[in-house]
Amino acid sequence: MNKHILVIPGDGIGPEVTQWGKAALEKIAEIFGHEFTFDEALMGHAAIEVTGTPLPDETLEKARKSDAILFGAIGHAKYDNDPSLKVRPEQGLLKIRKELGLYANLRPILLFDELLQASSIKPTILKGTDILFFRELTGDVYFGEKTRSEDRNTASDLMIYHKYEVERIAHKAYAAARQRRGKLCSVDKANVLESSRLWRETVQEIAKQYPDVETSHMFIDNAAMQLIKDPKQFDVVLTANLFGDILTDEASQIAGSMGMLASASVGDGTGFFEPIHGSAHDITGKDLANPLASILSAALMLEISFGLKEEAKTLVDAVDKVLKEGFRTNDIADTTTNRYKVLGTQEMGKLVIK
Amino acid sequence: MNKHILVIPGDGIGPEVTQWGKAALEKIAEIFGHEFTFDEALMGHAAIEVTGTPLPDETLEKARKSDAILFGAIGHAKYDNDPSLKVRPEQGLLKIRKELGLYANLRPILLFDELLQASSIKPTILKGTDILFFRELTGDVYFGEKTRSEDRNTASDLMIYHKYEVERIAHKAYAAARQRRGKLCSVDKANVLESSRLWRETVQEIAKQYPDVETSHMFIDNAAMQLIKDPKQFDVVLTANLFGDILTDEASQIAGSMGMLASASVGDGTGFFEPIHGSAHDITGKDLANPLASILSAALMLEISFGLKEEAKTLVDAVDKVLKEGFRTNDIADTTTNRYKVLGTQEMGKLVIK
Ligand SMILES: CC(C)[C@H](C(=O)O)[C@@H](O)C(=O)O
Ligand SMILES: CC(C)[C@H](C(=O)O)[C@@H](O)C(=O)O
Repeated sequence: MNKHILVIPGDGIGPEVTQWGKAALEKIAEIFGHEFTFDEALMGHAAIEVTGTPLPDETLEKARKSDAILFGAIGHAKYDNDPSLKVRPEQGLLKIRKELGLYANLRPILLFDELLQASSIKPTILKGTDILFFRELTGDVYFGEKTRSEDRNTASDLMIYHKYEVERIAHKAYAAARQRRGKLCSVDKANVLESSRLWRETVQEIAKQYPDVETSHMFIDNAAMQLIKDPKQFDVVLTANLFGDILTDEASQIAGSMGMLASASVGDGTGFFEPIHGSAHDITGKDLANPLASILSAALMLEISFGLKEEAKTLVDAVDKVLKEGFRTNDIADTTTNRYKVLGTQEMGKLVIK
Repeated sequence: MNKHILVIPGDGIGPEVTQWGKAALEKIAEIFGHEFTFDEALMGHAAIEVTGTPLPDETLEKARKSDAILFGAIGHAKYDNDPSLKVRPEQGLLKIRKELGLYANLRPILLFDELLQASSIKPTILKGTDILFFRELTGDVYFGEKTRSEDRNTASDLMIYHKYEVERIAHKAYAAARQRRGKLCSVDKANVLESSRLWRETVQEIAKQYPDVETSHMFIDNAAMQLIKDPKQFDVVLTANLFGDILTDEASQIAGSMGMLASASVGDGTGFFEPIHGSAHDITGKDLANPLASILSAALMLEISFGLKEEAKTLVDAVDKVLKEGFRTNDIADTTTNRYKVLGTQEMGKLVIK
């Protein structure tokens, strides 16, 4: 198979980890006899520094022409500390999601048995958890109109949904639920928000087309609680952009660490694959970042964009094997025992590739 | 001391639990020689059934005239299942918060050592946790303009903040941090939302007036994760209405159960005290609800509205004693052992009063 992949390392630990996602793809191509060609492009703070804008036209063009995109992370402390800056790294990520029509963000909570102990949640609560989040990615308060009054004392963001936006991701989530355990939980705040009421009405309508799937609705506050109280109750979770952002970061604790979770953003065209972790300025350049989420993002690309199931499984198995052998990065190391061999980003990456 | 207290039992398990919060106040009055008089009023579904509106004028008048309000819970399955209903129970709670100027919602995460095992989170992670949430309560997407297009296919809610709204709650939170461990973490989504950028700028400004308090800023997605990864890092957490709703429900797992958490809403006038749990239709009328959050809400009233520290402590100690003696309601019982005596709402209430 011939595929052209765009790599966007981004900011912070992005480059360090994406290097290993890319290496994993190269290795898979070698083993299975595919031809993957690669290009690279700038986004975020890295792009602002060079071009003045967080998503240069050139990056967008390259993205449109590629078969899939592997992305690292975005964000920089400078902007976090100065909310008044107008040009911001995150605008690059938001814009590329919108431009490529990446309306569905799939975040599987993949639980490696070996990491049951790495979580702050009790292993008995976690064991057997298998959740697939569908987070809406191109609507909500992320993309609604923003205002700031002239005296700068009032600021607003419009939380807005259109019915078709809810429908298209709901169909994707229901289709996935059918292939899994046949349960879908839609999360909203319909007791307070009008946009959530539209969300709930629409999901209730779509649900009728999937009578074989068991549908439930939960308020976001309750969901944030249930997710750690009893994660096993969930199969597919369908939710809006902002609520999905919050719930999936929280859910990363189920998998032991944010450093383990990959995500796939899909929609109208080219698929976009990235770790759910952020740019992590505090550990950038220290060889401490966990490259596994990038490698698992590469696995999602193989499966979802290219339909290469066996190839994807090979990567997941390689990660599993390394964990079984007792190797850990800092974020998933259990420091109360010395049963584990703690590795840096580079060594961990190399080991999985091997 | 003479005080007039309005009791609003509300919906679902509200009446069952509030009965015990009230009984606790009566007992305290008896022991310490205070004179507490009580009145009762309707709100939520209970009020809609009788008067057609979720917050009758009579309730609001009584609320204004009282020295403090003890509230139960709000909500009903009928409305949750039908998002198109125009008159909704929650409107009553939102309106009373706004009318009484209850802009600061204090949610202490009180961790009884006896309940360390009841949580889904590991005891080693929890032990020593002591967080006080300041949730803004009369602004944000809760109160911004709501729209629905004529064809009903587009819906929106305006997420909006004014600088003075951030300032007044920030001052309260900083004052509390000074009395505690001197740390304040402000949670927002300033990398995406303009209203969060106003929030962050304003907190950064106020922070200068409290150089003795250590300020940090965290994005909501990260906070949802950090809260269960390492809850001990937090002292005072200051956040907006929606983010506070989500984070405090999540944090209830730290205390073992939502059934344990009380909250105080304060601002311009009369204080308002309520459990953070909801109406819990599924267990209503089954004698399964945990009355401890209502009793602890009464304790918060004694301390915050009436300045009666010793009286408040007497109530908290009574709860602690009952837990130490091994009594539990269903939600905090550890079903893997039979070391505990599991009680219904009524028996648990009686025991604490005794
Ligand atoms: C960096 C930020 C804009 C982004 C988001 O909020 O969507 C990130 O948190 C994510 O989850 O991908
Ligand atoms: C019932 C609902 C309107 C309310 C809220 O969202 O504020 C509740 O969840 C709470 O936290 O007090």
